[in-house]
Amino acid sequence: MIRAVVKRVVYEHNWELVGIEDGFEGLIVPGRTRQLRLADVRGILPRGGTILGTTNRANPFAYCVRTEDGRVVTQDVSQQVARRVKELDLDALVVIGGDGSLRIGQEFFEMGVPVVGVPKTIDNDICLTDVTFGYDTALDTATEAIDKLHTTAESHHRIMFVEVMGREAGWLALESGIAGGADIMLIPEIPFHLEAVEAKIRARERQGARFSIAVVAEGARQVDGERVYQPDHDPLAPTRLGGIAEWVARRVGSRLDREVRTTVLGHIQRGGSPSAFDRKLATFFGSEVVELIARRGWGRMVALQGSDIVPVRIADAVRQVKTVPLDGYRMRTARALGLCLGDE
Amino acid sequence: MIRAVVKRVVYEHNWELVGIEDGFEGLIVPGRTRQLRLADVRGILPRGGTILGTTNRANPFAYCVRTEDGRVVTQDVSQQVARRVKELDLDALVVIGGDGSLRIGQEFFEMGVPVVGVPKTIDNDICLTDVTFGYDTALDTATEAIDKLHTTAESHHRIMFVEVMGREAGWLALESGIAGGADIMLIPEIPFHLEAVEAKIRARERQGARFSIAVVAEGARQVDGERVYQPDHDPLAPTRLGGIAEWVARRVGSRLDREVRTTVLGHIQRGGSPSAFDRKLATFFGSEVVELIARRGWGRMVALQGSDIVPVRIADAVRQVKTVPLDGYRMRTARALGLCLGDE
Amino acid sequence: MIRAVVKRVVYEHNWELVGIEDGFEGLIVPGRTRQLRLADVRGILPRGGTILGTTNRANPFAYCVRTEDGRVVTQDVSQQVARRVKELDLDALVVIGGDGSLRIGQEFFEMGVPVVGVPKTIDNDICLTDVTFGYDTALDTATEAIDKLHTTAESHHRIMFVEVMGREAGWLALESGIAGGADIMLIPEIPFHLEAVEAKIRARERQGARFSIAVVAEGARQVDGERVYQPDHDPLAPTRLGGIAEWVARRVGSRLDREVRTTVLGHIQRGGSPSAFDRKLATFFGSEVVELIARRGWGRMVALQGSDIVPVRIADAVRQVKTVPLDGYRMRTARALGLCLGDE
Amino acid sequence: MIRAVVKRVVYEHNWELVGIEDGFEGLIVPGRTRQLRLADVRGILPRGGTILGTTNRANPFAYCVRTEDGRVVTQDVSQQVARRVKELDLDALVVIGGDGSLRIGQEFFEMGVPVVGVPKTIDNDICLTDVTFGYDTALDTATEAIDKLHTTAESHHRIMFVEVMGREAGWLALESGIAGGADIMLIPEIPFHLEAVEAKIRARERQGARFSIAVVAEGARQVDGERVYQPDHDPLAPTRLGGIAEWVARRVGSRLDREVRTTVLGHIQRGGSPSAFDRKLATFFGSEVVELIARRGWGRMVALQGSDIVPVRIADAVRQVKTVPLDGYRMRTARALGLCLGDE
Repeated sequence: MIRAVVKRVVYEHNWELVGIEDGFEGLIVPGRTRQLRLADVRGILPRGGTILGTTNRANPFAYCVRTEDGRVVTQDVSQQVARRVKELDLDALVVIGGDGSLRIGQEFFEMGVPVVGVPKTIDNDICLTDVTFGYDTALDTATEAIDKLHTTAESHHRIMFVEVMGREAGWLALESGIAGGADIMLIPEIPFHLEAVEAKIRARERQGARFSIAVVAEGARQVDGERVYQPDHDPLAPTRLGGIAEWVARRVGSRLDREVRTTVLGHIQRGGSPSAFDRKLATFFGSEVVELIARRGWGRMVALQGSDIVPVRIADAVRQVKTVPLDGYRMRTARALGLCLGDE
Repeated sequence: MIRAVVKRVVYEHNWELVGIEDGFEGLIVPGRTRQLRLADVRGILPRGGTILGTTNRANPFAYCVRTEDGRVVTQDVSQQVARRVKELDLDALVVIGGDGSLRIGQEFFEMGVPVVGVPKTIDNDICLTDVTFGYDTALDTATEAIDKLHTTAESHHRIMFVEVMGREAGWLALESGIAGGADIMLIPEIPFHLEAVEAKIRARERQGARFSIAVVAEGARQVDGERVYQPDHDPLAPTRLGGIAEWVARRVGSRLDREVRTTVLGHIQRGGSPSAFDRKLATFFGSEVVELIARRGWGRMVALQGSDIVPVRIADAVRQVKTVPLDGYRMRTARALGLCLGDE
Repeated sequence: MIRAVVKRVVYEHNWELVGIEDGFEGLIVPGRTRQLRLADVRGILPRGGTILGTTNRANPFAYCVRTEDGRVVTQDVSQQVARRVKELDLDALVVIGGDGSLRIGQEFFEMGVPVVGVPKTIDNDICLTDVTFGYDTALDTATEAIDKLHTTAESHHRIMFVEVMGREAGWLALESGIAGGADIMLIPEIPFHLEAVEAKIRARERQGARFSIAVVAEGARQVDGERVYQPDHDPLAPTRLGGIAEWVARRVGSRLDREVRTTVLGHIQRGGSPSAFDRKLATFFGSEVVELIARRGWGRMVALQGSDIVPVRIADAVRQVKTVPLDGYRMRTARALGLCLGDE
Repeated sequence: MIRAVVKRVVYEHNWELVGIEDGFEGLIVPGRTRQLRLADVRGILPRGGTILGTTNRANPFAYCVRTEDGRVVTQDVSQQVARRVKELDLDALVVIGGDGSLRIGQEFFEMGVPVVGVPKTIDNDICLTDVTFGYDTALDTATEAIDKLHTTAESHHRIMFVEVMGREAGWLALESGIAGGADIMLIPEIPFHLEAVEAKIRARERQGARFSIAVVAEGARQVDGERVYQPDHDPLAPTRLGGIAEWVARRVGSRLDREVRTTVLGHIQRGGSPSAFDRKLATFFGSEVVELIARRGWGRMVALQGSDIVPVRIADAVRQVKTVPLDGYRMRTARALGLCLGDE
């Protein structure tokens, strides 16, 4: 993405490009900006991650600082950031990120900062774009992991639970489950009953299957329950590492008296060489966001819609989290193939 | 795809499924049909290819047969095929394939056969669907090959030409070139000048680059020229193996006095474990085509459009080959990044 | 492996092959044997796992059974197994597996059963063979995971801990750490000091590194300590999922006041399409074990030694677990490159 | 490799490291040397190729130069190179490469230059080391390509020929064929009969197989024939691109009247992210060659022998090309499994 921006800006325009390190952090802490030149982006296409660094913690509207007596408090440093943008003499600020970063970008846009956006998140939960970049690579990684669990599950006759990312939306869990041939997918959109999970495993055993694989989004939750993640009150509660998948696995394992195993993909999902799909999408987004800047399309982000890339209002894209439609072809397919989504 | 069809039919309907081997060949030659059951599709998700076989040669409207005296002639055996569909008591015929197969399917539909279609081709050249299944996997394979050539080209200082599939449309060449970071892409949509290719390589050398990589679609052709592939008249002509990429490579290499190397990806592009994207798309298409049959949507095929899968008329989808739009974001990006497309 | 055995037996000999399902379990429980034919092994080369299933629990010398009143007790059913081998009229019993399986095989050999062995384990801890098959694939998987963590660690500036298999030996942790470019490797052979881990991370930070990656074998343990795994007594204790890596990560994270993340590869390490190296090794081992049977080399297993495959006595191969030599080139390299092995 | 050398030298010694670009070329042409620092090797572990460039053409004992009247002649510039080594004040010259480079290194050693060597070639044809680094990655690439051809061959019922590297030795062809499950392997060590190839294909067809896959080393040759590569005299002769595989494919295809397809892997085999095996081997070799320098082991190279890395005399290692032993376990396995090697 950054590579395409740099290449297009160098090739077509006379603009100077400033890279800001670690997201908004680089506009709060001094000395974290640097000029971006062609040489900086040479050879980075097949590499994952970002050459500029990133951080999830730096929200200028609620920035964590440690006081003299050691307490951590949040401050609104947004005015300071807006001033810094002026000092740096930036004609445009390109915000690359997911839900959180784009919302912050929108707030700065409303404060008068000339912001444009690029939807980049492995969660795929931004509205108005068919897909975000980063998602396809995470989907490949999660699917490949499920493939590998298949090998073990088949050989060892076990029930395997794998936890994938997705706090608010189940895209990755649902689609990697379908692509990987899982039997059960628990996603935030559909609160689950443990009974449904058990019934599915029992049904498979009756049909002769000697293993079952369940994909659990980290944001999955039980029916009628609050979010299940309660380390303080629940004697069986998972640690931070052992999340909801482990929670479900233990209960199902103990009720069915079966051997269960849990795998948490964790940060492996964020890394790796991007898929060809993500590389082309990132390149197209990077090129088109330069177009957006040239047209002074402040407050807008690039979005893939069918066979077109179009600008959409960031405000509209982040008004709500894009969850998996309950009546779309994905759910229809999952149900039509007899997969268990946790709701009997 | 077949797996999803079988799973949904078994799970939802009482239908009997007949697998026809090797495409239309299986409706011409006797003994090439067999019942499809769940057991037939177990474990095939991560595997490429098709359990039913395929052949490009069997067009019932122009079927090649060898006469008694050894000549090969074409016959119209379409009536025979239509009768065979009746004998087999098929309520629907699912045609899975690219341009050629879907056109044949459309002709049978016009003859009264209840046909539905699924767009499956690595060429991605079917209209009315954002993408065909099979394409993403081929894109991964071609991009990975370009990645590997990068390693060699950088170390050895060479000009590398790689030929990828695409007789009529340049999707694979253009997008793998962008995803793989190639410098030159020659596609059927844009007849090329050798001078443009040379100028690009010279310009890169002036900028200090010590290698260049060109992706050539097998259907690329020179400006004002007929298709360049003329083994009989051209002393430098490539053999069947050495196609247009080799042809261009030799000329450019000899005119610039540089070492060039050509790689032809060939059938490697058709194989391999499908990408997660293709697996999910195939599953969705397979599920939705069962829906199409249930609704008796004869003459229609499933198509991905933005965030939806919809039925479209096969006749509309194959009226012409879907080529890369000359004014879309892909071309715009390629030009904005200074990539050479062979023109001017 | 099984494929090579079947192919060679079919091609060269007149022997009948009996597949025994789920390891020794298949000789205890009736109805778990079946004839193996060429058709059974067709197409299995690129697939991981085993077509015969496996289980770690079935040790005939200490077989777990549930009594009528619900207690689980262990019984010696070895005589019964030896009788079953006679009933099945087996001329040879091929034991494929790691330390545990081969030891059991050796015990049966001492009881007079004609046993031959093949060293197959991802732990690589069998003596007298340069490598076991399965190990290279696990090494690829673990290395790829570390690559992916690199991407995230670099972008997010974090300390990453990844736990890999290896209860008794640190082959996988050490070699994946070296191949993946980790900074710290904690292995069972070298009890670690938390202080050494912290010192290494601090030293890297002083040199400007903004992330560190530690690979932890599941059998790593603290200096002077018992095995660290004490869920009952330790308030910070990990759950079954969160093992030693999580334990170290929490302590190091809290003492350095840094963000740490833990990933447990778990059963992903056991699966997946085998590497080319493992496929060729498995084929060679499979072929050579047929030779061993033909020569009636009872009590021996096939072993790779330099550029040869030779038979060695199983008793010698499993006398002790093969750990990473403390004075070999691997350790020498790790130390010479300044990597931290946990011992100041 | 270079990374390990740099890291160890920086960590353990006070030496200055000079990188020489493009092999011996960098000692002939001025301005092609530069200091190597830690920063130069950061992040290169997962990347293929070499940061120093390479060239096959620069043999100082027969260096090609263009005279004023345009002719190309060879000159012996070895004295000039030896002087350059002195001018640069090098205490040791590390030669990294295959047969050709190591032979040149040996000649310089005999002239008094303090040379040490590292066996790096995808051909695996250096004596006295179990394996060279680079080979395992090429084996992975070739095996993966055969896997992909399997998919197509099975679906389309074709005879596939794939040409892999190996002018003098058949390691890659033989082992990728075994790992990929090919049916026929033609290697330089065993001159082939076309009749044997045809007989194998016919035998497979009689057994019901509908496809066959043949791996052909680029240096394979027909029995009693000179090297088959005769573009000038043979009307069916292949072009430079279409090598021996295409030559065999055409003949076999026309004699059997079958559809054949040829794929030439070419430079794809040289590239790509190295396998975990190659990364660890390169790191060990790089570390151990520093040891060799410290011990002033001139004229020696590092070699893997069983479970040890040892220094061997370069002269012994390159005295002859290491070919696949005709009586070793590899050949024994190939024959025992009924694979065709082109003889008889």
